[in-house]
Amino acid sequence: MPDKNQIVYVSQTEMFTTFKNILLKYGFSEAKAEICANIFTQNSLDGVYTHGVNRFPRFIKYLQNHWINPKTDPSLVATFGGIEIWDGNLGPGPSNALFITEKAMNLASEHGIACIALKNTNHWMRGGYYAWQAAQKGFAFISWTNTISNMPAWGAIDAKLGNNPMVFAVPFRNEAIVLDMSMSQYSFGAMELAVLKGEQLSQNGGFDAKGKLTNNPQEILDSRRPLPIGLWKGSGLALLLDIFAAILSAGLSTHQISEQITEISLSQIFIAIDLKKLSHFEQIQSIIEAIILDYESSLSNEQQAEIIYPGQRVLRNRQINETKGIPVHVSIWDEINSF
Amino acid sequence: MPDKNQIVYVSQTEMFTTFKNILLKYGFSEAKAEICANIFTQNSLDGVYTHGVNRFPRFIKYLQNHWINPKTDPSLVATFGGIEIWDGNLGPGPSNALFITEKAMNLASEHGIACIALKNTNHWMRGGYYAWQAAQKGFAFISWTNTISNMPAWGAIDAKLGNNPMVFAVPFRNEAIVLDMSMSQYSFGAMELAVLKGEQLSQNGGFDAKGKLTNNPQEILDSRRPLPIGLWKGSGLALLLDIFAAILSAGLSTHQISEQITEISLSQIFIAIDLKKLSHFEQIQSIIEAIILDYESSLSNEQQAEIIYPGQRVLRNRQINETKGIPVHVSIWDEINSF
Repeated sequence: MPDKNQIVYVSQTEMFTTFKNILLKYGFSEAKAEICANIFTQNSLDGVYTHGVNRFPRFIKYLQNHWINPKTDPSLVATFGGIEIWDGNLGPGPSNALFITEKAMNLASEHGIACIALKNTNHWMRGGYYAWQAAQKGFAFISWTNTISNMPAWGAIDAKLGNNPMVFAVPFRNEAIVLDMSMSQYSFGAMELAVLKGEQLSQNGGFDAKGKLTNNPQEILDSRRPLPIGLWKGSGLALLLDIFAAILSAGLSTHQISEQITEISLSQIFIAIDLKKLSHFEQIQSIIEAIILDYESSLSNEQQAEIIYPGQRVLRNRQINETKGIPVHVSIWDEINSF
Repeated sequence: MPDKNQIVYVSQTEMFTTFKNILLKYGFSEAKAEICANIFTQNSLDGVYTHGVNRFPRFIKYLQNHWINPKTDPSLVATFGGIEIWDGNLGPGPSNALFITEKAMNLASEHGIACIALKNTNHWMRGGYYAWQAAQKGFAFISWTNTISNMPAWGAIDAKLGNNPMVFAVPFRNEAIVLDMSMSQYSFGAMELAVLKGEQLSQNGGFDAKGKLTNNPQEILDSRRPLPIGLWKGSGLALLLDIFAAILSAGLSTHQISEQITEISLSQIFIAIDLKKLSHFEQIQSIIEAIILDYESSLSNEQQAEIIYPGQRVLRNRQINETKGIPVHVSIWDEINSF
């Protein structure tokens, strides 16, 4: 019996072409197939397999079920100054999010800061992708999405909150510092990956069915009780992020998304600040350099942990995978090639 | 020997007048004395004693040492569209922050969204105060401050990060939903209060001197190793909040603040969105109502925890303290009356 965890290394070009050709079969235009194929490939190249190659089969399932419409683009609903509201028209989450990120950058160049609220869109896979794009172009960027309910409020047992991933990014050394985090201690993708690898989580990540804290990812996936970051704090932040996304976009909030047939019609916020418009723009890189220099001078703890900044592991993964190819579970790559 | 924990109940009026008269002695104008006295009183009335009455003696110490200049007001440094940069000129943190919050609201009314970066200011005491002001006037509001280094990065033992409190707020039922949280699991004020009361923290809040997790607040205050919310996540967020505050304001970052004589010359960000400018403004309250209704229908856990939304406890404290008076430790009230 072949090992289900056996790994094959796929080049970036092969992965992109494979994804693109499949998307073309599902009704994507050439341009949109390339955008989405590139995002799934780049996420994999960056080591975020859970929201790259590992997630591609689920994306196809959504297309097969007509939960994602490959033919629609976002349309402008309303605008006031540095604020715009767009309707994602249930198009592909990745191409919608990239389109809106570019709109937010353009609007920020006009107003200094811009906020675009996008309703009726789909899962963006990985907020970090859009954050890297914006930061590499000289923008400070804050963005988040709501999700289906998947995390109990602090003190509750049933999941009423989304884990609502959020990104913060700034330009750094021709690359970026990018924080990309969900409001649960571990993302569902991370827990599913740990199960696949037969590993425990490094820290308690939620409650088991009896309400006891556990680092067993399967028990948390079963109980649907992941731990919010910072306990009551992440619980509160998840609630506020959903409220902001819903009221600014006039789109669905987590409780309404949870009434849909599956996780569709999300609401997202994109805030961009054009650093080039600041009179002290030339100083910004040296300010960040000094902060990172101090940060990296931290004394490591008893476990000799490495002190890295958000996004640093992505850069390393990218470099390794560009050389060696992107590691993919054979079972997943076989499934993708069957589409 | 009198019990150092003995409580006296002080009316809102008496507390305000006491604070105001002391501030007048330290060179405050009538108007600014009233603004600052009101903020310290309101924070106490709202139950945030650690950044209200309990902190007032330290505020006076800063004035005595000329670390806060009672006579200066913020001055405009630069502007582009919805962005403004202001210099706090080392004036009082509370009056500076309120002034800038009002500027941010005005600018948001013009551009929909506004971001003001304030450098060279002082401790604002409690971000929630400004958040309540903005939300009650119909704004969605996000704001944060950097601090002196007081929290190790995840994996480190020495404090290189600030715990950089952040607020998110929206209007709700003529009041507001206000999340006010630092990036450490417990604020230093909360840990100091627990020590004063001889209590343990309800959850592990940091590491002891040996690197073991503990809920003993004194051990954490001694080790200076509070736990970031969400472990590596809150550590990353604290870093990004400091970077944003420093690069947008061109003010000091945490590592530079930590080189000052004490915690002065902070950098702060104020983002306001004028909800009244959105064409769907009339729907916003019902969107929030529906979210909170669903949230409150959460099933309580094994400990029968109460599920409350951010800001709800503040409203309760306010109501109780308006009726009974504000509870103050006799030792603290005596000290204040000696100024």
